[in-house]
Amino acid sequence: MNFEEYIRDIPDFPKPGIIFKDITPLLAVPEAFKGVIDTMAEKVKDLDFDTIVVPEARGFIFGSALAYKLGKKLVPIRKPGKLPYEVVEVSYSLEYGEAKIQMHKDALSKGEKVLIVDDVLATGGTIKAIETLVKKLEANISGVLCLAELSFLNPREKLSNVRVETLLKY
Amino acid sequence: MNFEEYIRDIPDFPKPGIIFKDITPLLAVPEAFKGVIDTMAEKVKDLDFDTIVVPEARGFIFGSALAYKLGKKLVPIRKPGKLPYEVVEVSYSLEYGEAKIQMHKDALSKGEKVLIVDDVLATGGTIKAIETLVKKLEANISGVLCLAELSFLNPREKLSNVRVETLLKY
Repeated sequence: MNFEEYIRDIPDFPKPGIIFKDITPLLAVPEAFKGVIDTMAEKVKDLDFDTIVVPEARGFIFGSALAYKLGKKLVPIRKPGKLPYEVVEVSYSLEYGEAKIQMHKDALSKGEKVLIVDDVLATGGTIKAIETLVKKLEANISGVLCLAELSFLNPREKLSNVRVETLLKY
Repeated sequence: MNFEEYIRDIPDFPKPGIIFKDITPLLAVPEAFKGVIDTMAEKVKDLDFDTIVVPEARGFIFGSALAYKLGKKLVPIRKPGKLPYEVVEVSYSLEYGEAKIQMHKDALSKGEKVLIVDDVLATGGTIKAIETLVKKLEANISGVLCLAELSFLNPREKLSNVRVETLLKY
């Protein structure tokens, strides 16, 4: 199955010069979405991890179905003001602008093995920030798994210390 | 399985006087999350629907796993500035404050049968707003399915014209 057929390019979103990868056509075709989740599971079948960590909001879509399929713990990463309990926080710069993200302080235990899941790996800035949060709680990164990778932004340079799996490369 | 054991009360979040239902402990226990998704599927097994519509961000978590399990189309509802293509929009008031939500204009077809899925049914304001969006595209609401229901806020009064299923009542 060629997943690329289900990703729509939206030019100049959210800012001029950016070509946004719109995943909503893929979500609209159940066989395509199932294909993505099952292929994601296949990509990490030899990876040792306990927990799937997902950034809001599109990361939730892929991480949740994958956690359900694989029977893994799911931990949400959110923007400030969204998580109700005590949090750890990190600031970072992303493809367009600045951002802060948070994770609950009790979300991960020391030594817990984490797979980070998101939709699109762009500069790698978000994933790098999630790594920082995971390390603040003394957990370990087993790997990173994303649907699509914007190779021309060189995200793997930022993530050289960790295994990165993606289903599509642009 | 008593799902209530996995929901944590956070007093005075996001505003004084509100007791927030924190679902992150449930996501942290794979058997509990699987139990919720499987029970959700059971609740709507006699319902005729094509598509699961989910509001960001916690709705994504339940709707995505359910769409994967049932092989249904998934349509995200988002806050302004998040969906990249042409949108329909609605403004509404919620338990604490005002909000706007959007859906892609091409997300639903005329007559398409929709199940709305979210985590917590509070005042019913968000679900009512989603109904408005769905109707703007001339699709039909088959039902509403949420993990938990805050009965003391009387959400069903707002949703008297539609079948509402919930797994937990407060």
